[in-house]
Amino acid sequence: MEKYMYSIGMKVRDYECDIQGVVNNANYQHYMEHARHEFLESLGVSFSALHEQGLDLMVSKITIEYKRPLRGSDMFEVRINMERKGAKLIIRQDIYNLDGDVLATKGEVEVICLDNGRLTRGELFDKLFKDYFTKNA
Amino acid sequence: MEKYMYSIGMKVRDYECDIQGVVNNANYQHYMEHARHEFLESLGVSFSALHEQGLDLMVSKITIEYKRPLRGSDMFEVRINMERKGAKLIIRQDIYNLDGDVLATKGEVEVICLDNGRLTRGELFDKLFKDYFTKNA
Amino acid sequence: MEKYMYSIGMKVRDYECDIQGVVNNANYQHYMEHARHEFLESLGVSFSALHEQGLDLMVSKITIEYKRPLRGSDMFEVRINMERKGAKLIIRQDIYNLDGDVLATKGEVEVICLDNGRLTRGELFDKLFKDYFTKNA
Amino acid sequence: MEKYMYSIGMKVRDYECDIQGVVNNANYQHYMEHARHEFLESLGVSFSALHEQGLDLMVSKITIEYKRPLRGSDMFEVRINMERKGAKLIIRQDIYNLDGDVLATKGEVEVICLDNGRLTRGELFDKLFKDYFTKNA
Repeated sequence: MEKYMYSIGMKVRDYECDIQGVVNNANYQHYMEHARHEFLESLGVSFSALHEQGLDLMVSKITIEYKRPLRGSDMFEVRINMERKGAKLIIRQDIYNLDGDVLATKGEVEVICLDNGRLTRGELFDKLFKDYFTKNA
Repeated sequence: MEKYMYSIGMKVRDYECDIQGVVNNANYQHYMEHARHEFLESLGVSFSALHEQGLDLMVSKITIEYKRPLRGSDMFEVRINMERKGAKLIIRQDIYNLDGDVLATKGEVEVICLDNGRLTRGELFDKLFKDYFTKNA
Repeated sequence: MEKYMYSIGMKVRDYECDIQGVVNNANYQHYMEHARHEFLESLGVSFSALHEQGLDLMVSKITIEYKRPLRGSDMFEVRINMERKGAKLIIRQDIYNLDGDVLATKGEVEVICLDNGRLTRGELFDKLFKDYFTKNA
Repeated sequence: MEKYMYSIGMKVRDYECDIQGVVNNANYQHYMEHARHEFLESLGVSFSALHEQGLDLMVSKITIEYKRPLRGSDMFEVRINMERKGAKLIIRQDIYNLDGDVLATKGEVEVICLDNGRLTRGELFDKLFKDYFTKNA
């Protein structure tokens, strides 16, 4: 079994489901974003505080494979791993339906860091996640 | 310039923007979904009518590259091309900010068709889009 | 202090905030809906299961007073009381910011029950909430 | 027939519908917000530009009566009237399904204006809408 750096449990809300009775595809992106921000917060960092300092973490690319849809009231976990790659942070985010621990979606998110609108080399990522990168080296 | 099969104009609504003042990443998926459904509708086919017949078009994978964020009130177009690939329909969907015709996001969506929950070989795609596939052959 | 029948804790997710840096007004309605469905679920009843039986709980009117906006990462509680009024269920739903237990929004929701599309006299409400109505009589 | 100050046409997008197959209640608030911002924009005023000047239009209360649900692909209009009442602007916003011109929802929104976080007497409203208030006097 894969080991994750961070994991957060959530529950599907009915308004997140669409006519097909399953979670609308775009909402998995919401779950993934929320999980990333909670990860940051667990490290004592707030996404909006960063924004106010002129530091914006921006998603430059996202890939999501939809395996098994989640439905209303399903309990699930968003599990996160990440690595540096040049100026980018590559975050892998898998969503598991806790009923049977079944993979619902498999995601990969590339994040860049802007300082007052200009691309940085990603120094902030090392600062934020240094404990994790070391542990996994 | 690339030729597209279908294109639809839309306008950013303020509630689609987040704290960073730009369209939240997940909302581009909403724009893309709406554009696909409008494309279907332009062919006389309704997404929800298909659902009621037991035919569900499901996204199996999505990739979005975020190039230049859209902001409140921006006018944009979602432009669509597609091709068959085995049982899948591969839909390329680019979003252009009409102010300067600048590429905002570049997307690729893989769609499968379920018939009462079972994967089909995608016969429906040929039926729906046969005029387009022939023209581009 | 008012006594409530049901209460559920939640946390603001950043994507629920808009350009003004506060939770977008429409999202309080989402919180309120989710709290109602969780209340139902705590009684062993699922909103979507009811829908599949032809029973639809529909909001016929909603009033929300916005007192103090919630912001990203705020912890809050949705607290619920309700009473029957003719064919309607009147649900009062207050949202409190847990930082200081400050009232964020004050809501009143009127709900009707349809049986296969036809208005009922609300017999389902008595069945669902009889323990609560008795206790408060 | 009531005469309105402003009206804007829109179309239901499928992702705005929920398990019940109708537009989720909270989304009518989104439609109403978008219509207000478009009204402002038609007067040459941008909601986010106001925000950047420290002027925030905030909804202090909203009431929505749900009459007939909208469904996927429905065309509708949000129609607006307003009047001053002390420091508040009272905006009435009715949503009509264009198929038969049937009233879908009836809304009333109370808006206040904050200047750098402090409540104003609503001078901005007179400035923004003076032509409308005069015409209707």
